[in-house]
This record gives sequence, structure tokens and C-alpha cells, in this order.
Amino acid sequence: MFDWTIREEGYAEENVSLLGNRYLIGNGYMGIRGTLEEYEADKLPAINLAGIYDRAGDGWREPVNAPNGCFSYLRVDGEIYRLPDKTPLSHGIELDYRYGIFKRRTTWRTARGNITLVTQRFASMHKVNAIGMRISVSADFHADVELVTGIDCKVWDLNGPHLEHVRMGEKEENLLVQADTHEQGIEIAVAETVFMHYPMEMKQTVKDGKTIHRIFFITKPGETYITDKWIGIYTGKECESPAEQALACVMEMREGGYERAMRVHKKCWDELWKHSEVTVKGDGAAMEALNYSLYHLHSIAPRHSENLSIPARGLSGQTYKGAVFWDTEMFMLDFFLMTDPGTAKTLMKYRIDTLAGAKEKAAQYGLDGAFYAWESQEGGYDACTDYNVTDVFTGRPMRTYFKDKQVHISAAVVYGLFRYAEWTGDESLLDENGVRTVVECARFYYSLLLHRLTKDCFEIHDVIGPDEYHERVNNNGYTNRMAKYTLEKAAEELEKAEAKGTLPGEYDKDELILKFREGAEKLYLPKPEKDNPHKGVIEQFDGYFAMEDVSVEEVRNRLLHEKEYWGGANGVASHTQIIKQADVVTWLNLFSEEYTKEVLKVNWEFYEPRTEHGSSLSAGMYAMLACKIGEPDKAYPFFLKSAMADLKGGGKEWAGLVYIGGTHPAAAGAAYMTAVEGFAGIAVKEGRLVCNPSLPSNIQEMRFHVFYRGQEYEVTVCGEKGQITAL
Amino acid sequence: MFDWTIREEGYAEENVSLLGNRYLIGNGYMGIRGTLEEYEADKLPAINLAGIYDRAGDGWREPVNAPNGCFSYLRVDGEIYRLPDKTPLSHGIELDYRYGIFKRRTTWRTARGNITLVTQRFASMHKVNAIGMRISVSADFHADVELVTGIDCKVWDLNGPHLEHVRMGEKEENLLVQADTHEQGIEIAVAETVFMHYPMEMKQTVKDGKTIHRIFFITKPGETYITDKWIGIYTGKECESPAEQALACVMEMREGGYERAMRVHKKCWDELWKHSEVTVKGDGAAMEALNYSLYHLHSIAPRHSENLSIPARGLSGQTYKGAVFWDTEMFMLDFFLMTDPGTAKTLMKYRIDTLAGAKEKAAQYGLDGAFYAWESQEGGYDACTDYNVTDVFTGRPMRTYFKDKQVHISAAVVYGLFRYAEWTGDESLLDENGVRTVVECARFYYSLLLHRLTKDCFEIHDVIGPDEYHERVNNNGYTNRMAKYTLEKAAEELEKAEAKGTLPGEYDKDELILKFREGAEKLYLPKPEKDNPHKGVIEQFDGYFAMEDVSVEEVRNRLLHEKEYWGGANGVASHTQIIKQADVVTWLNLFSEEYTKEVLKVNWEFYEPRTEHGSSLSAGMYAMLACKIGEPDKAYPFFLKSAMADLKGGGKEWAGLVYIGGTHPAAAGAAYMTAVEGFAGIAVKEGRLVCNPSLPSNIQEMRFHVFYRGQEYEVTVCGEKGQITAL
Repeated sequence: MFDWTIREEGYAEENVSLLGNRYLIGNGYMGIRGTLEEYEADKLPAINLAGIYDRAGDGWREPVNAPNGCFSYLRVDGEIYRLPDKTPLSHGIELDYRYGIFKRRTTWRTARGNITLVTQRFASMHKVNAIGMRISVSADFHADVELVTGIDCKVWDLNGPHLEHVRMGEKEENLLVQADTHEQGIEIAVAETVFMHYPMEMKQTVKDGKTIHRIFFITKPGETYITDKWIGIYTGKECESPAEQALACVMEMREGGYERAMRVHKKCWDELWKHSEVTVKGDGAAMEALNYSLYHLHSIAPRHSENLSIPARGLSGQTYKGAVFWDTEMFMLDFFLMTDPGTAKTLMKYRIDTLAGAKEKAAQYGLDGAFYAWESQEGGYDACTDYNVTDVFTGRPMRTYFKDKQVHISAAVVYGLFRYAEWTGDESLLDENGVRTVVECARFYYSLLLHRLTKDCFEIHDVIGPDEYHERVNNNGYTNRMAKYTLEKAAEELEKAEAKGTLPGEYDKDELILKFREGAEKLYLPKPEKDNPHKGVIEQFDGYFAMEDVSVEEVRNRLLHEKEYWGGANGVASHTQIIKQADVVTWLNLFSEEYTKEVLKVNWEFYEPRTEHGSSLSAGMYAMLACKIGEPDKAYPFFLKSAMADLKGGGKEWAGLVYIGGTHPAAAGAAYMTAVEGFAGIAVKEGRLVCNPSLPSNIQEMRFHVFYRGQEYEVTVCGEKGQITAL
Repeated sequence: MFDWTIREEGYAEENVSLLGNRYLIGNGYMGIRGTLEEYEADKLPAINLAGIYDRAGDGWREPVNAPNGCFSYLRVDGEIYRLPDKTPLSHGIELDYRYGIFKRRTTWRTARGNITLVTQRFASMHKVNAIGMRISVSADFHADVELVTGIDCKVWDLNGPHLEHVRMGEKEENLLVQADTHEQGIEIAVAETVFMHYPMEMKQTVKDGKTIHRIFFITKPGETYITDKWIGIYTGKECESPAEQALACVMEMREGGYERAMRVHKKCWDELWKHSEVTVKGDGAAMEALNYSLYHLHSIAPRHSENLSIPARGLSGQTYKGAVFWDTEMFMLDFFLMTDPGTAKTLMKYRIDTLAGAKEKAAQYGLDGAFYAWESQEGGYDACTDYNVTDVFTGRPMRTYFKDKQVHISAAVVYGLFRYAEWTGDESLLDENGVRTVVECARFYYSLLLHRLTKDCFEIHDVIGPDEYHERVNNNGYTNRMAKYTLEKAAEELEKAEAKGTLPGEYDKDELILKFREGAEKLYLPKPEKDNPHKGVIEQFDGYFAMEDVSVEEVRNRLLHEKEYWGGANGVASHTQIIKQADVVTWLNLFSEEYTKEVLKVNWEFYEPRTEHGSSLSAGMYAMLACKIGEPDKAYPFFLKSAMADLKGGGKEWAGLVYIGGTHPAAAGAAYMTAVEGFAGIAVKEGRLVCNPSLPSNIQEMRFHVFYRGQEYEVTVCGEKGQITAL
């Protein structure tokens, strides 16, 4: 049954972290983990704020979790009822992912009878600073109830505490918490207000790092006691007086009432789904997983901003430092291009506006141009550390080179920019700063080019490709191809910019074009091998074929510790042909038209069994390339793996000893791309939208909308037939 | 007291390995560890053969130990007397390092009285295939003695067994063992014969992997029973019938008699010392350590060959695979140039004759020219493995890059060749093959040159310099300077070769000269820093200054396991400024005339406290550069450390879990260079030998001979005065 709802019946403490991710709600401004209201920091609740970062002590810089305004629990006949301390008679949660509504229902048996707590919450899609909550209490006896609800200032942090000078107070029965981030002193204000649909008494208290309402009432059997609660969050980053704004916000929301706010919220979601829902006939599981994935992408899209991007773990917490990776451009962008081009623009504007940070990073390495952050925070600051992994055997931090050597990131930015311009037809991003972004990325790659005196070509050495298990390799094919792309596009764009009047004055256009063209032309690209044993296969980097050829299983068996890192200098995979994720396959997927189907197929078949799929980015690339080879049934399990990444969970939660759990929006994006571009075969040929369906055998029909160049189309795909209708 | 003898009184089982090295005797054909005659394989005895290598199973290729023809022990009144099983009344060993004679004297108390065993052995310097032994037995009672002596075929191996088809037999009372090496089937033949100066009965037996004589006699109190024993060793590498030769050898030696053989042997040594002894007044310890060091160099000099070189651990066993490193050219060559130029020629001829191996290695890496083996065995085969170190935490082999990245080795070969030609005046090595060697090394470096398109210079990336703790660095100053040297010398030599008629036909001289000159000219060399905080210091490689600046002590304190490797990707030193051994200091020592004394001094003082001196090669370079700075007292402790490397022992015996004990001939060579070139200041200025003494305060006078361009000179240095007299 496809009803846009996922459910979890019963209570299991070990699932607290998993469900926190799976039942996440959000609106791009914030993400609220699917945790229960009574949870304190040890159960990983979080109201994770987009784009607000802080460093405390020697830890990593990471996004800030706001004081938890959802905090609530019950006291009945003087006794506290909360999970997990008090075992319930029944318990369940559900997520309406059509509208981003989290619900919980718990019944406890007390000495005098049963009491039921039902809550519901949503992060308003209309007013992104606001969270609406409805708390319903009912009992089959005259229960003496105290509803405790307020703001818990002891937030869950990986590397906190981030909030200083915490001021807890109240203003006309509204609660207010103000605090400043440690590093930059950004004020975070959380206001809260409640509205009771029943007679009661209320007190307010500050205790144990919490500011709370204590609401007292006695239940009549069969009656439901409804409390509406509003949480407003503002930061010093968006306004002058966050506290005032937050208070004004909650008062306004209370004034308008819960039902109305919910209606407006749902309307926003309906509008999003109108353009993005994918109907799948014949495969309910696929339809559910796919739309659930899109739900996650919508929940974290920074619609409230003009230049924010999406972190690799969405807004599900602080893992991966809340940082933006290549995931956005290579895996999520297409979804927004096709369903919500405004958000796509915001994502790319973030990159243009963080060019200064990228230039600074390049300069630090003695290189020219723009070297985008591998883990980008505000201003393009690279949050990636030199030591990203802990050696499980010695407990020592292990030097990794993601930040230094994953140079393909800058090309991803350029790729995203042109993909935006080409798909939307909107060239506005390619103003002077847009052109600068492209040119500086090209200058970066140009400064990486090495000419070995005894060779005719240029090479790029000492990089990490998408497959992070092999560090510091020479001539990674994906990296070289993307560098070539960047150099070529920059040369083209310089020509165009002059004509359009967007050429920045500091550039000597002709000289740059000459250099970029020469660089692109002579840049070495590994070719499909001519002879056996690797006929048709493209070597991932210099020397890859000489590495040990062994199965993933065998490499896994060599692990001495379940959490040990497979890569790095001495990992179990490092000196084998086992790779973490699609690498050559990513390249071939992006540039499939440059190779014969035979070559695509040979490479897919060579690399797939050598891929651990240790990254959630991996399956999607294999799925998409399988579609291009014309083997959608081969693609299908990889598609489903991407689409189920968060629905099923169970992905890697550890890299060495570092917790990396959270949601996987890139996998969600890859699922969308596989469905729309792979199965339905949506593409642009000679400036026109075309559709070449290649449905897997268990999907009979797909139906969805796409935007292309400002026009919305309805696409219906059935068997081998596809139909595109302008709306 | 300086009497050319070192002694060890008493017996301590834990010193078995140490004394095996310290009391080594040898003659360049073989090295015989200073172990007792009764020792079997577990006590590390070895008759280590120069230049015979073998691989057994998956282990490293290593030199072969011959069946132990020295094996002997006593049975008295039916009871076995041997160490360590039977505690002695007194025991001592000594080494006469003037003549390479090992002696042992042990007295045991038996039930009926005391019995004394005295043995003496030497590896004939005159007849290098022969070992002479004299076994003397005396007792203070009528002892019923059985002297067991013969050949033990169960040899000590690190990665054996190397000997197959072991045939034990006898021929006319002589014992004979023949065996074939596993890999190449080289026959090793060991013959043995005894001559008793007293009446006895003799039986021969083959038992437990040994072929032995059992010599029965009864002692008269006060009388000494002398047995002379000869061991002859021949291999299929040097002759057609090793067994016949070995038998002929021992019969001839027996025929001649022990005293005569000893006389001839001593005469050979006297001849060596005539040219090489260094007399030091005022510092007996220095004189002893220095001449003891020279003894080791003489003992392992391959005088019997025309193209062998000296392994890094001499002939003290199988550690370091019996392979030849840059140690020979950079640390040992000078001693031979100045005291025994014929051997210097042999050492360099080895490199010329292994050019094919070096070319093959370069080709394997896709490079041009000659990349000499980091650990060179016969034919230039590189015995260095990809995994040289064991991770003590996981027990896994750890990928190291000594073989792949220590590219400075080829320059050391070229340096040695020209040092030979320049010092001796003998250009015969620079025949066509000599020129080829030089040119192919230059072609190798040329093919390493990288031109970053945005820079004016050429760079060499991804190398390991002398400091092995920092792997895969760019622009290691030492490496770049040596590459430049090679390119320059090759260009020069090409010009000369044409004039001399030694230009190999395959070369386009003008084209090569053009390339080599451009390469040398544009090759980037780090310069002394202009500004503080590193003013005057030369950065060891790109990015070195940015590494953690921390003391050796602090780094040592970070060790979690005493045997863990400091280098590699994640060693305790890898990301700090702590280096294993002289690196920039090695460069400055070789090219001191290119820098001011101030720069030399600043670098010495910067790098010394950052040097762990984890290699026995390190101290010598610091000592020599200190002399050039005019600070011989600063040099002195480093000189003594080099000179005492084997006399004192206690150097690193482990790299990770790999045993690396053995003698340190490079340290011995460095001690010589420091004494002669440093303290005495022997050098060549404008084609003439000069002497600029710079004696440390506790040395009053030094006296020695040196050869220069075929002429022998006597040098006397006293205070600030030096005198050179042609002989």
C-alpha cells in the first residue's frame, strides 16, 4: 500500500540513532531528527541549522544544533512517563513524507489506568524559522497530569559545546533562549510558546539547563487534551535581533492557529510534489523508496537562501561536519534542475560566492586559481582535516589526503554551473563572478599540469580520484577527464563572455584560451586497453592493473578489526584492485557518448566486482551506466540500493573510529537520476528534451514532470514508449 | 693499550649475535662470524659467501651461507663439552684485527680435572678460498678426549634453506660437502681436512646433517695436542669443478703447513696496513676504533674479483639481503681510493657491469636510462621488496617505497665513477661501458624531470631522499642536486668521450648534451631561506618546514611499541621535522664549496637536533661537515660514533620486526673519511694533494699514507701543520 507514510511499531533503544535519520523532518533552514520529545543529548536529538558552523576547542568545525525547543514529557500522578525509562504498553512513530510530518503515539499503563501521548510536529515549509507541534494527551481515568514542555539547552554535539552565554528566560509566558556560538559569537535565539485547548494551570521554571512550562490538568476519561506548541528559531546571521524575531514568530504562529499553519505548510509541499512526484506502476517498493528519497531532498533544500548548498549528510546532524561535498553537484543537482530550478540556482550560487575561499586554498598549496574545499563550510572554508581517520590499532589519527589531493572537486563545481546554464537556459549565473569561477578552476588545473620532459603529453600526479581507497595516484582517469572538461569549458566561456560583456577585466582572454586549449588537448587520458587481459578496460590510474587482483570478499576477510579503514597508505584495499566506489564508471557515465557501448560494458563488468561500494555514491553511478549500456535490469538493484539508502539504513556508520551516520541525499539524488535519466531516458538532444525509455522489467509505467529551459513537461513512460507533453 | 686486539672475557649467551658481528673475520671472498666452533644454526654462525645469492620460497633473496666447515667440539671421558651447555671455568675470545685472527680459549672442569680448548682461525688473505684453523687441547689429567670436527650442513639462514641436494662424503680422509643453491643450482663445495701433531685414532661419520671426523686421544698432563684444520670453499660461479678445487685447496694448504700459511696471510695484511694504517697520537681510543673500522673494510674487500662490490652489512650475514647500497660509493669508496685503488676499481666495475639490470629497472617504471637497484645483488637485480617493514601492530607487511623512490642511487654510482677517475687518474673505467653508465643515469634523471606548466623550472617529484622517514616527497634537495650533478657530468663526459674515442655509437651526442645541460640548468634546487624564522636553512623538500617542529625525544615518547617503524605513511616521525639521517647535510657536505661557511653552519645546527641518527650513515656526514665548518671538536663525537659502530655495537638491530643486525662498513668508511679528509683535511686542489688540518683537541698527531693518482704519499699532521711527502 502506497500511502506516503512509513511506520515503526514498538520501541527498541538500539534503533535510536537509525530512526533519528530515517524519520528526519526539515525545511532547508533546519533539520529535526526523528527522535522522541523526551530525549536528551545522549539519544542524539538535534535541530540542526543549515549554514551555521562553529569550532569548539580542537575538534572539527561542525554545524550548530539549536537548543531543543521540542523538548517535552509527561508526569502522571507525580510519576514521570518517558522513554526509554518507562516501558510503554504500546508505542509507534510514523512519518508522513508527503508533508514532512512526524508523529508519535505512546500508551503507558499507570497504577490507575492507561494514558496516551500523541505528538505531531512539522518544520514549516512556509515559515522556515518555525516548528509546529501538537501534543495530545488522553487517559481512561482521571489522571493528574503535568505536561512538561520547553527548551532543552543541553544539545547533542559531536565536537561541542558550541553555545556559550546561554541566557534562558521568558517573556509574557513565552520561553526564550539566547546563546552565542563559541567561535564567531553568532547569536542563536529560540523562542517557544504554547496554546492549550483546555483549562489548566501553568508554571514556568528554569532547571537543569532547560527552561520549561509545567502545565497541570486533570483528564476526564475519553477526552483529549490538546496543546499546540510553536518553536521559532532565528540567528544573528540572518537578522539583527534574533530574539525579537523568534518571539514575534511564535506569537504570529500561535495567533494563526495550528490548523491554518498546517494547511499552508501542506500547500507548500503539494506545490513541490506537483513538480516532482514520480509515479511508478508495477513496483510499489520502488515508488515508495524513490519518493521517500525525494522527500529528503526537498526537506533539506535551502529555499530560504540565495546561496546555500546541501551538506553531504543533509541536515541530519553534525557528521561530515555539515559540509558540502561534490555530492551536491554530481548527485543532487539534477533533481533540482528538473523539479525546482530555483533551488538549483541557489546551490550553484553558493559555489560562486565561495570562490574566494577556493582561491585561498589553491594559494596555500602554491597553485593558481580555485581549489574548492573538499568539505566546504561557509565562505568556502575547507573543514576537511589532514587526519580524517583514526587508526583503530594505535588510536592515532591517520594522515589522509582527501583535502589535499581530491582535486576533482573544482571540476564538479564547473560541471554544475554549466549543467545549470544548459538545462535551465538561465545564463545569469555566468555573470562576471560566474566566469571567474570557471576560469579560476581552469587556472587551477592548468597549474597542476606536469610535462614530463620525455613525454609529449601533460599529466596530473598525486591525486585521489572518486575511489578514495587509493591515495596519491598519478593520472587518475576521472580526474584528468574532468580537468580537460574544465579547461575546454573555460576556453569556450572566455570567448562567449567577451561577446556577452561578462568578461572580467583582469583576464588576458587570448592568452588564457591558448593555454587552456593546449592544456586540454595534451592532457593525458588513459585509453581502453587494446589487448588482453584487460582489453577494452580503462586503467583507473597509472599502475592500477599491476595491483593485486583479488575479490572484495577476500579483502574483507583480511580485516583484523571491523572498523579499520580500508584505504590510506596501508589499508586492506590500498594495494589491491578493490576500489571504494565507481571511479572509471563515474567518468564513463558522464562522458558515455565518447565511448562505444562495448567499452562502457566491458568497464562496468570489470570494475563492478572490484567495487566495495563503500560509499553511498557508488551504486547510483553503476545504475546509471547500466541504463546507458541498455541493461536496466542490471541497473535495478543498484537503483534500489540508492533509493533505499535511508529508508533501509544500515550504511556505514563508521570510518575508522569516526561516526559518520546520517542521511544520504546524494544517494537519493542518484536514485532520481537513475529513474528519470536512466529508466525513462530523459535527456537533451540538440536542444530538445527527449525520452528513450529503458525500463527494468518490473516497472510497467512511470509518470513525472520535468522542467527544461523554464518549461514544465509531463513525461509518461510505458514499456518502450515515452511521451513528453508541455504543460 | 693499543695492541690491535679486542677481547671478551667470560661467557654471556645474550651476546652471541653481537659478538658474531664484532669478532667477524673475512677476506672479501667470505666472512666468518665471530661465533664459537660448537655453535649450530640457532646461535647464528655463518660462513657468508660474497656475491652468491639465492631465493627459497617466498622469502627475500639473500646471500648464501656455506656449510660450516669450522664446526668442532670436544667429548671428554665420554661427556660433551661445549658452550653454552657446559658452563666453563673460564672462557674468552679475542680478535687480532691486525691480521684477522679469531681466538678462543675455554677451560672446563671435568670430574677428573680441567681441560682447555684453544682455537684459532683465519680466512686466508692469500688464498681466499681457504680457512685455516688450529685446535689445541690440553688437560691437567689423563683425559680421554674425542675431538669432533667436520662440516655442519645445517646452516643459519634468515630465509632459507638455500642449499639443496646436500651430498656429504669423504675422499681419502678429507671431508667433502656438495650442495646446490635452490634458485640457480649453483654448486657450493666445502672440503675439509685435518692434520694432527700427535698420535690418535680417527673415525669419520655422517650424522645429523654433519659429516665429521672423530679424533680420539688421551692427554698427558701439561702437554698440548694440536690439530690443524683446513676448510676450502669453491662455488660453481668461479670454476667448473668446485668439489675438486676445494679438495685440492685443503690438501695444498695442509701440505704447506699452518705456520707457513699464517705467515703468508700475515704478510698480505701487513701489505694492506702499510698503505692504510692510521696512527693517532694522544687518543688511543680513536686510534683503536679507527683501525678496527679499517680492518672491517679490508676484511670484506672483494680483492679476488674484478667486479664485485661490498654489501651494506659487509659479509656479516644475510641481513639487508647481502645487497649493495649507495653506502659503497658514498661512504666506503674513499677509503679504497686512498689506500687500495685496485679494490676501488673493482667496486665501480661492479656498477658498470650491472648496468643492464639498472636499465631494466628503469624500464619497469616506464622511465628511460638506468635506475640502479636500491639493494643490488648480482646482475644489478634489485632485492628490495615493496614491503620492507612489518607493521608491529597488525603483523602485516607495510608498503615502503625505498626501491621505487630512492632515485638518488643512480647519481651515487655516477659520483663514484668520477670520484674514482678523478682521484686515481685512471680513466680506464670510462670506456664505452663506463660512458654508457654515466649517460644512462643522466637519461634516467632526465626522464624524471617534470615541468609544471606554470613554473620556469624543472622538478623531481615523489622521491625518498637519504632521510627515509619522509616518503614520497617533492624536490628533495639532495636528490635534485645529485640529479643535476649527473646531468652535468654526463654532458661533460659526452664531449670528452668523443675526443677519447669512447663515445658509444648509439648516442646522438649533441642532442643529449643539449638536453642534459638544459635539464641541469633548470632543475629546481631549494635555496637557503632568506628570512627568519629559517634564515639560511635549506628546506629538505617541499613542505618540510610546515611539518610539526618537535624534538626527537618527544617523537620517541610517542612510540607505542619499541620496534615500531618511525617512517612510512604513518610513522611517529613521518609528519614531523624529525629525520632519520643527514639529508641536507649530506648534500652540503658533498657540495660544500657552493655555500658559505655560515650557510653550512646554520644548516648543521638546524638539522642536527632534528636528526634521529637512525642510520649508521648519519653521524659520519655530520662529522665531515663539522670539519668543513672548522669545528672539529663538534665533529669528534660523531666521528667516534661512526668508528665505534661495530666495536661498541648496540646499533639498531630491528626495523619493524625485521632483523637488521650486522656490521656497518659504511660507518667505518665514514670514520676514515672524517679522519683523513676531515681532521687531516686531505683534499685535491687544482690537481694537487693538499692538507689542511683541523684536528680535534684531543688528537695531537695523525700519520697515514694515501694514494693519489698512482703515487703514494705519507701524511703527517700535527696541530695546525700538515706535511705531505711523496714516497
